[in-house]
Parts: sequence; C-alpha cells; structure tokens
Amino acid sequence: MSKVFVNIGLSLDGYLAPEGMNMDDPGYKNWGEKWGALMAWLLNQEYMRKKLDFGPGGETGPVNEMVRHTFERTGANIMGKRMFDQGEVSWPEEAPFHTPVYVLTHEKREPWVRPGGTTFYFVNEGPERALALAREAAEDRDIRISGGADVIQQYLSLNAIDELEIALAPVLFGGGRRLFENLREPVPQFRIDTTLDGQDATHLRYIRK
Amino acid sequence: MSKVFVNIGLSLDGYLAPEGMNMDDPGYKNWGEKWGALMAWLLNQEYMRKKLDFGPGGETGPVNEMVRHTFERTGANIMGKRMFDQGEVSWPEEAPFHTPVYVLTHEKREPWVRPGGTTFYFVNEGPERALALAREAAEDRDIRISGGADVIQQYLSLNAIDELEIALAPVLFGGGRRLFENLREPVPQFRIDTTLDGQDATHLRYIRK
Repeated sequence: MSKVFVNIGLSLDGYLAPEGMNMDDPGYKNWGEKWGALMAWLLNQEYMRKKLDFGPGGETGPVNEMVRHTFERTGANIMGKRMFDQGEVSWPEEAPFHTPVYVLTHEKREPWVRPGGTTFYFVNEGPERALALAREAAEDRDIRISGGADVIQQYLSLNAIDELEIALAPVLFGGGRRLFENLREPVPQFRIDTTLDGQDATHLRYIRK
Repeated sequence: MSKVFVNIGLSLDGYLAPEGMNMDDPGYKNWGEKWGALMAWLLNQEYMRKKLDFGPGGETGPVNEMVRHTFERTGANIMGKRMFDQGEVSWPEEAPFHTPVYVLTHEKREPWVRPGGTTFYFVNEGPERALALAREAAEDRDIRISGGADVIQQYLSLNAIDELEIALAPVLFGGGRRLFENLREPVPQFRIDTTLDGQDATHLRYIRK
C-alpha cells in the first residue's frame, strides 16, 4: 500500500519558514539569508538544479539520490490552501509536481489542469477525504503531504503519517512558522530509521511505530 | 580558553520537558512515558548507570564515551533557579556535578557546599557575571550551561554558546518547555560539526560560526 510521507526542511529551532518572509520587505530580520540557509542543501543538488533550470553542476551524492527518490516515489501530493495560493502566482506554467495535487480548501473550484501532468483538485471535505482521493490516484506510488505546517499537523493528529523526513538545517530563525504545534493527544509515535549527513543539513528519517 | 557548551536532550518537536511534568499527576498526558523516551539514550549508558547506582550493565559504545567526555571536560556549571530548586530536593547528598555550580537567581544566599566537590554559588548579577565566575573556576576545563531553557536562551542571545550538543529523541511531546524561544536578533550562527547515531536519539553537535 502507498506510504504517506512528509519530506521537509526545518530550521534547528523548528521553523518551516522565517518570520516576516515577504518580498515586500526583504530585509526584515534577515529572512532572506535564513531562508537561503534552510534551502541550501536542496538547491545545491544536481537533480534540483536541473529541475529548476539553474544550469549545470550541483552535488551528485547520496543527498541528490534522496531528492530524486522523493520525487520519483510520489504519486500524489496534498497541500493547504495557503501553499497553493503562494504557488499559483509563482510556479512556472509547468507546475513542479507532475502528479494530481489535492488542495485542502473551503473554496469550490473546478480542477486546474497544468501542462506536464499536474492537476490541482480542490477538496472541501477535509483531510481524510483528500487522503482517500490521493490514495486512489497514487496507485502503487506514495503520497506526499507537501505542507504547510497546519496541513502536516492535521495529518500528524490523524496519525496518518508513515514516514517523517526532516532536513534539519543548522540555522536558527528565532521566529516564524513552526512545524510542530497543535498536536492532539495521543501524539503519534515514531522511531529513528536512518540519518544522512550533509554539509548544509542533517537528513533525519523517522518511521511510525 | 574554556569552551561554553550545552549538552541536552530534546524531543523531536523541540521540548526539553513535557507539559504537566509533575509527580502529583503522573498520568497527565502520558508525561512519564514521554520523559522516559527522551532520557532513554542517557540512562542506558554504562557510565551513567554507574553514576546513578543503577547497577551493572549498559551500553559501552561511542555514546557512552560521549557522556563520559561531557562530564570529564566540565570545570563549572551554570544553571537557573528553577533547575536548582528541583534538584535541591531530589539530588543525592553528593550532588552529581563535582564542580562549582553558578545558580542565576535573585535570591541572596551563602554558597552551599556539598560532599564530592560540588559547591553551589548564588549569583545575583546576571548571566555575564555568572559566566565570568565560571570561567575563572573552570581553569582549562569547559563550562556547561546546564539549563533550564530560559538560561540557555539567555546565553544564546548573548552569543556566548560555543558548542551546542543536542540528543534529539524520536518522541513528540505535543507541549511543554521549548528549548528555542525568545532569541534576540541577530540570532547566533552555527555550523554542523558531527552527528552520532544512536537507537534512542540522534546526537547532533553544532559549533558557533
């Protein structure tokens, strides 16, 4: 059966995004540099550079293979409305998912088909319904809970996350959007699976007990 | 010169202690099991079992050596008043530090000498003064900022932490006392030094840039 997984970059102090991350005020609490430190591990990989048309070069080691595997295993994505809204104005025409994407929202909207295999479906019936749709679409591939924090928290509280993959970057944000908040009791239980060392992040992989 | 370091266990969601950790209500949100999961890596080490009179046995690998090194390198400890108050009623006669311990407090009190080389000094003039006293006492050994969270935060905000050692346990607390909060800008900057894998925790070591 498909696995449900999270693969996300996290600051050492537990944030997915720094406080005040907004193009209108690029100097606010140095957020640009913080965000860059969080994403460095990913943007330095050959696979990602190619995907983003950054030109040749990039790392080709085990982290690169992990990034490739993450994309190739994914048969469906689930995301929140805020993440979709931000992406709608910034993704290229060919949105970088190449799978069905289920967007949790209260908004009613027809599916939005993009070139390259990405179709966004707008789900009004909550996270369990989105997961059921994603399972059907993913077939034997896996389901990525893409974000943001609130959506990951909802699936953690449902104890629906099989694998939690965190790229822990050695940067302190001092504020922002926390990954781990608002968890319901009983909290889900994980065990350590593997650790992969990188220069820009430590890749921590946990599996549900 | 002496290094200033933190060596602390942390839950995957960033807490030093679970919510409601109180002997009066041992069942509250399952705190006992959470705390046990956080401390398992430490209490399973031979060096620690001997120190706590837990009897023979225990792990003797690299994590055990790390624990031994942490104690042996320490020439002075600094802690907050709440940590001291909890310890005062629970440490054995021979308090488990064997160094001078500087307690940050507003209370005026004479030094409290314990058998085995631990003397508690009560410092009313703030964290910088406590650090100066600890440096003098530690001579060529290092200074451990023992906790709690608020004291570690004060030294992080002073950019006085040279080495940050975190035993990240694969347990979610869902609430409690967070390590990383209240940091002042500019936040301190660290780089990854080493990672040591354990079954019960991942040992992350960061060095100030």
